[in-house]
Amino acid sequence: MKQETVEKWELFRELLQKIHSYQEAVGLMYWDLRTGAPRKGAETRSVAIGLLSTEAFKMQTSTEMGEYLAYLNDPSVMAELDDTQRRMVLDVHEEYERSAKIPPEKYREYTELTAHAETLWVDYKEAGDFAGFEPYLTKIVEMNQQFIDYWGPKATRYDTLLHMYEPDLTVEKLDQVFGQLRDRLVPLVNAVTSSPNKPDTSFLDQQFTEDKQEKFSLFLLEQMGYDFEAGRVDETVHPFQTTLNHGDVRITTNYKRDDVASAMFSSLHEGGHALYEQNIAPELGDTPLGQGTSMGIHESQSRFWENMIGRSLPFWERYFGDLQKHFPGQFDNVTAKQFFLAVNHVENSLIRTEADELTYNLHIIVRYEIEKMLFNEGLPVSELPKVWNEKYQSYLGVTPPNDGVGVLQDSHWSGGLFGYFPSYALGNMYAAQIANTLRKELPQLDSLIAEGNFQPIKEWLTDKIYKYGKSRKPAEIIKAVTGEDLNPDYLADYLEQKFKAIYDL
Amino acid sequence: MKQETVEKWELFRELLQKIHSYQEAVGLMYWDLRTGAPRKGAETRSVAIGLLSTEAFKMQTSTEMGEYLAYLNDPSVMAELDDTQRRMVLDVHEEYERSAKIPPEKYREYTELTAHAETLWVDYKEAGDFAGFEPYLTKIVEMNQQFIDYWGPKATRYDTLLHMYEPDLTVEKLDQVFGQLRDRLVPLVNAVTSSPNKPDTSFLDQQFTEDKQEKFSLFLLEQMGYDFEAGRVDETVHPFQTTLNHGDVRITTNYKRDDVASAMFSSLHEGGHALYEQNIAPELGDTPLGQGTSMGIHESQSRFWENMIGRSLPFWERYFGDLQKHFPGQFDNVTAKQFFLAVNHVENSLIRTEADELTYNLHIIVRYEIEKMLFNEGLPVSELPKVWNEKYQSYLGVTPPNDGVGVLQDSHWSGGLFGYFPSYALGNMYAAQIANTLRKELPQLDSLIAEGNFQPIKEWLTDKIYKYGKSRKPAEIIKAVTGEDLNPDYLADYLEQKFKAIYDL
Repeated sequence: MKQETVEKWELFRELLQKIHSYQEAVGLMYWDLRTGAPRKGAETRSVAIGLLSTEAFKMQTSTEMGEYLAYLNDPSVMAELDDTQRRMVLDVHEEYERSAKIPPEKYREYTELTAHAETLWVDYKEAGDFAGFEPYLTKIVEMNQQFIDYWGPKATRYDTLLHMYEPDLTVEKLDQVFGQLRDRLVPLVNAVTSSPNKPDTSFLDQQFTEDKQEKFSLFLLEQMGYDFEAGRVDETVHPFQTTLNHGDVRITTNYKRDDVASAMFSSLHEGGHALYEQNIAPELGDTPLGQGTSMGIHESQSRFWENMIGRSLPFWERYFGDLQKHFPGQFDNVTAKQFFLAVNHVENSLIRTEADELTYNLHIIVRYEIEKMLFNEGLPVSELPKVWNEKYQSYLGVTPPNDGVGVLQDSHWSGGLFGYFPSYALGNMYAAQIANTLRKELPQLDSLIAEGNFQPIKEWLTDKIYKYGKSRKPAEIIKAVTGEDLNPDYLADYLEQKFKAIYDL
Repeated sequence: MKQETVEKWELFRELLQKIHSYQEAVGLMYWDLRTGAPRKGAETRSVAIGLLSTEAFKMQTSTEMGEYLAYLNDPSVMAELDDTQRRMVLDVHEEYERSAKIPPEKYREYTELTAHAETLWVDYKEAGDFAGFEPYLTKIVEMNQQFIDYWGPKATRYDTLLHMYEPDLTVEKLDQVFGQLRDRLVPLVNAVTSSPNKPDTSFLDQQFTEDKQEKFSLFLLEQMGYDFEAGRVDETVHPFQTTLNHGDVRITTNYKRDDVASAMFSSLHEGGHALYEQNIAPELGDTPLGQGTSMGIHESQSRFWENMIGRSLPFWERYFGDLQKHFPGQFDNVTAKQFFLAVNHVENSLIRTEADELTYNLHIIVRYEIEKMLFNEGLPVSELPKVWNEKYQSYLGVTPPNDGVGVLQDSHWSGGLFGYFPSYALGNMYAAQIANTLRKELPQLDSLIAEGNFQPIKEWLTDKIYKYGKSRKPAEIIKAVTGEDLNPDYLADYLEQKFKAIYDL
């Protein structure tokens, strides 16, 4: 490496380190707002979040950064760098190009708006008051429309948003794979929900104290290999995972007294996200490549651990005894098999996060179609509850009694995350496709699960996916791991096989 | 106001707001490290704290800040400002002048030295190894001596350090008040500790579960008027209060299974700090004047709520029944009076933080005299253990068996906080003097406490002290509230009266 390149690389890394410190502070301020910051401090906190995010944003788009990138992202210099360094330059450059198009004051306004709106959303959701929240949501949508203009629309305006969460994903591709999936899932859902062989779920209809649920969730996280010395677990209204730094990967869950399944599966879900982040190669940690490569791949890992491991029969053959011990007297006359069947009960329902593995994808398709209408067809925000309720009736056969369990149920839009929802269904598809390869390469998979021996599974995933962080694109990973591009048939096959067996079809 | 003044004021406030946001982020990162951040993330976190603190320091001493202050702190411009604005300019100017006198590389060296020394101190304290720690302490004292030269010595060199924590406090004044106090307290302590009428403390020697202690602490905080919507309570090894913003005033406590008094009184103590911060006038909130005016006045409020309210007989006449209810079966054969006596038990002891209300002041006087010797009389650091042990023997009749429970017991010196200790005793004196006026203006004070009706007390304190934040100097407040300057006789009178009654002298 030329001396000049050594120096420029050093300066580039120092600036990235500085940006990382700001992002860590901002990440912690968000986490804190959600895990119990006092209500009366939230407004000032939003200002601080806005200010520090803006400072980080300014550094990302600074002339300094521009100079380093101009120097480094030059073919003759790139040739001096190793593969990881090159990928880092390209990744930061792409971010730089996108961010530099947003005026800093717009950016600050947006972060303050969404930080504030996310706090307010909790109350409006509670009250089921869409009218109260509408002005904030309208403003957030407007600002996203402006951002699309700054970035320049792709094939459609909504494509621009999709690309942020899943590089190179398009409306055209999504229309195709979601179409293919819907065509296979709708008849399956109909068959399942009209089957007379319904699992008995009556024993789930009990009260479960929060402290017992907490102990069981922590136990499961420990079993799956979540590193408690590099993270912590808290309770929030809406569970999430956040990485503050490479040694601080936090998750949250939500304990519902009348629903014992909710917290345990959300813990496995967020734990899946966390395993990914905790097992990125240390040398990528705290760099721009030290994170999951896309929302879709991230979600494939959370859904894999939640559903393909956590909602499998071998898993409950291993852990049902522990469940009984954690909730003494509450599952005395139930078997592991019955519990497995009950937590795989399929029902058309209102709430995405509580939906079963099968209908879940329809919840996503509803949101995908609505977001497309908002950004590509000019649907006014005021129409959201009406369109939401109609689509729920038509795809899932249910209508929300109020907007708190309807259009206001998710935090995403209050945080400005338009284009994010498709990642969830994409995650399901990736997960099924990856699991198909995993099962070929670890044929003893079911016995490992039945022994609670997750180490080989975690190692395989680390070796194939986790360790690379963001240094491989999602499409590269899928191709390298499974030998082919995204193919929705693996998910449809998996769901068909699983639910036909459960519902005796 | 001239247009130019309006504009400059606006820019000045914007810069202050920005600095506040950085300080809020740094404050939260510290709070988080202490309340449960994961071990593996701590190193990266420290980098982020160092980086953002340095950025805030740079803004405080920036040429931009210098320009605003040069413009605003000019007699003709000051005449355009209102009283609060003027005080804000003067306050920020003083801070600016002090910080700007330290060469940045010295500041960095000192920050690194004290950060390192604070970490090492934990082990040297544990081992009782003063000789090992001596080189670090010597360097810290040397650098403080250099800072005194940069800042310019006042009447004596130690005065310069005192002034940082208690504006305008002097060695001359402290010699006088501490001398007066010592002359009255030493005979009182002797009489009390040799009295045959010792309170029975045997019923405190039990185990108390943490969740019961937590419920009782939260109950007491609620009773005293701590606003839980503008703060939160957590557990840490060492209790503290931290203000993140005007609506986010947090406290921590520590639940000790074998010591039920510890958490409840530390909750009242930190709650006292918090009441002060929560009741500063909202228009001062999140400005440099939106904080307690000095360490001494702050400590007067924590000690007032902890000792003068919390360790009073009327308080336990009101709350002993609640204590019994919170710890069923653990205080069945105890009376309110007996509990009051037990938590006021006096004993000559080695450790400041565990000392009773009476002997506590002697622990402080020892430290004050030693700091004065270090900075004004050239006492070599190597002599510290000898001087420490002699003074403990002479004032408190005890000699530390090793330096870990002697001269190394406090973290303050390892962090460079010379001149800080007097604030604690000053707080006790302020508290007694303020309480004397309070009792004249609210003659029904004892019955208010016995009714648990703290609202009038809180309102009086807010009106006289809290609302002003840092917009009044400590001496101004004491004079305005009590009609005279600091007078140690109020504390001596209060302690004499209280402990003569308790010990039946």
